[in-house]
Amino acid sequence: MEKYAFGVDVGGTTIKIGLFDMQGEIETKWEVQTRTESHGENILPDIAKSILSKCKELGIDKDDVLGIGIGVPGPVDVDGIVYGAVNLGWGTIDIPGAMFELTEMRTMAGNDANVAALGEMWKGGGIGHKDIIAVTLGTGVGGGIIVNGEILAGAVGAAGEIGHIHVEDQEKEKCGCGNKGCLEQFTSATGIVKLAKRHLKETDAPSILREGAITAKSVFDAVKEKDPMAIEIAEEFGEYLGKALATVAAVVNPEIFVIGGGVSKAGPVLLTFIEKNFKKHVFKGCKDTEFALATLGNDAGINGAVRMIMN
Amino acid sequence: MEKYAFGVDVGGTTIKIGLFDMQGEIETKWEVQTRTESHGENILPDIAKSILSKCKELGIDKDDVLGIGIGVPGPVDVDGIVYGAVNLGWGTIDIPGAMFELTEMRTMAGNDANVAALGEMWKGGGIGHKDIIAVTLGTGVGGGIIVNGEILAGAVGAAGEIGHIHVEDQEKEKCGCGNKGCLEQFTSATGIVKLAKRHLKETDAPSILREGAITAKSVFDAVKEKDPMAIEIAEEFGEYLGKALATVAAVVNPEIFVIGGGVSKAGPVLLTFIEKNFKKHVFKGCKDTEFALATLGNDAGINGAVRMIMN
Repeated sequence: MEKYAFGVDVGGTTIKIGLFDMQGEIETKWEVQTRTESHGENILPDIAKSILSKCKELGIDKDDVLGIGIGVPGPVDVDGIVYGAVNLGWGTIDIPGAMFELTEMRTMAGNDANVAALGEMWKGGGIGHKDIIAVTLGTGVGGGIIVNGEILAGAVGAAGEIGHIHVEDQEKEKCGCGNKGCLEQFTSATGIVKLAKRHLKETDAPSILREGAITAKSVFDAVKEKDPMAIEIAEEFGEYLGKALATVAAVVNPEIFVIGGGVSKAGPVLLTFIEKNFKKHVFKGCKDTEFALATLGNDAGINGAVRMIMN
Repeated sequence: MEKYAFGVDVGGTTIKIGLFDMQGEIETKWEVQTRTESHGENILPDIAKSILSKCKELGIDKDDVLGIGIGVPGPVDVDGIVYGAVNLGWGTIDIPGAMFELTEMRTMAGNDANVAALGEMWKGGGIGHKDIIAVTLGTGVGGGIIVNGEILAGAVGAAGEIGHIHVEDQEKEKCGCGNKGCLEQFTSATGIVKLAKRHLKETDAPSILREGAITAKSVFDAVKEKDPMAIEIAEEFGEYLGKALATVAAVVNPEIFVIGGGVSKAGPVLLTFIEKNFKKHVFKGCKDTEFALATLGNDAGINGAVRMIMN
């Protein structure tokens, strides 16, 4: 009789692991270091070792374990095959196959953004919905699409890559992906800083932002202080993101967008700029799409990962 | 033991019905008129009557029938509820429920573009694939998304509405949906004519297109004659559509786009303009997405409809 399941969130520096009971409650969680050297060949063995030693420590038998869910930063298809993960040094790996060999436990794998979306649907900002899109505004812009309660992985695990929607023909700088004019270049934490610097350079108008270092946080703090230039920057951010999400809505028609990542710490004010511009461009059949902030923070990954295996 | 299933494609003027065997072969197909008066209240009874009389004619017992699949021109959710169909005069209708009452046969319903996509996957341009997007370039621009062999309907049946992706901030004319700058305004049969007329007005340059009526067909016929202005128009068409499909690919990551509808009669030359621009903007993880022409024509609907029920 299964009593437990493990949720694993593999990041570029640390691996988060959670032990969950069958009601989906976290019994305990911990972290191990991500060893990316030697093409990341230690990563899965390290996870396996950590899980097996936790089982031993707590007297958990293999038969007590339903399985392991793992989220990784790379494209993963429906069978759990990852097609390379640059930050981990990985090429193509059959994660369920490799983990079964190491642990004899059933394993499922997904892309980290998709898995986090599943977590937010289950326990976070998307609770009560089964068609959600989670948008992560961090160093980059990630997306996770859940259709009818399940991850939309795509043919080669590249679904939900909304950070790389082309939104600006005039952009001259290259995105990390090699293209020019990607959504990520304007609406990630670094993208917002770039927008802010360009605005500050264009005029001599006074702004709180001329003092101190510019971050996504300082821009939205200045918006809350009604700084006109910060509001202009937030408008431009909202125009890019709202318009792109209107496109995404016409394609996938979710019930709700859940906005997370570091930038979302700006709070509800962030949503007002996105929603206003979303409504301006969205197909009328999708006009009632809701918006909410993500609530699970760093725990979205382990929660979504374990949800995969408990589904 | 079930031996047959019916596929129904409801259009604004005619309803196509096909009787299929369990191998998916069409035994016979016929059409009945779509009676849209009185809010289309006769449409489902007419379909039921036609199916029941065909059964009687051929000596088919109800127990011999697996069920009925129906495609309709409106948003349909996963349960077969249609949320209004303007061309039929319909409001919200529970199609499976209503049809069961009329025929005592199990019925499934889907949006016509989604159902046609399923047909193209099964027997047409998308054969051999399970993640396809069918794009219909006709009077309007429709889209049908198939993920892992199943229709992606969306929260309120509005998924795949790629004709209403916003692609042009400068457009001053309104789209049928009420927005301005939708993909449909530039890449439908009528959109291509509009692009052509604008090009012809801009200069006095000679062109085959200055003789006779302009249609999507005459534009691509002129492209085949290497008419420079026609090529410019096709390039603009390809830029709008290729860029939009690059966005769609980053969201859903299909294996293949299958291009159908009246405009697709232009043949393979059409794909060259779309693919070139697609590759220019697409996220590298989706760069191997294939393109093909639809092959089923008007039979895509009845085939996809019956496939729903046979799945």
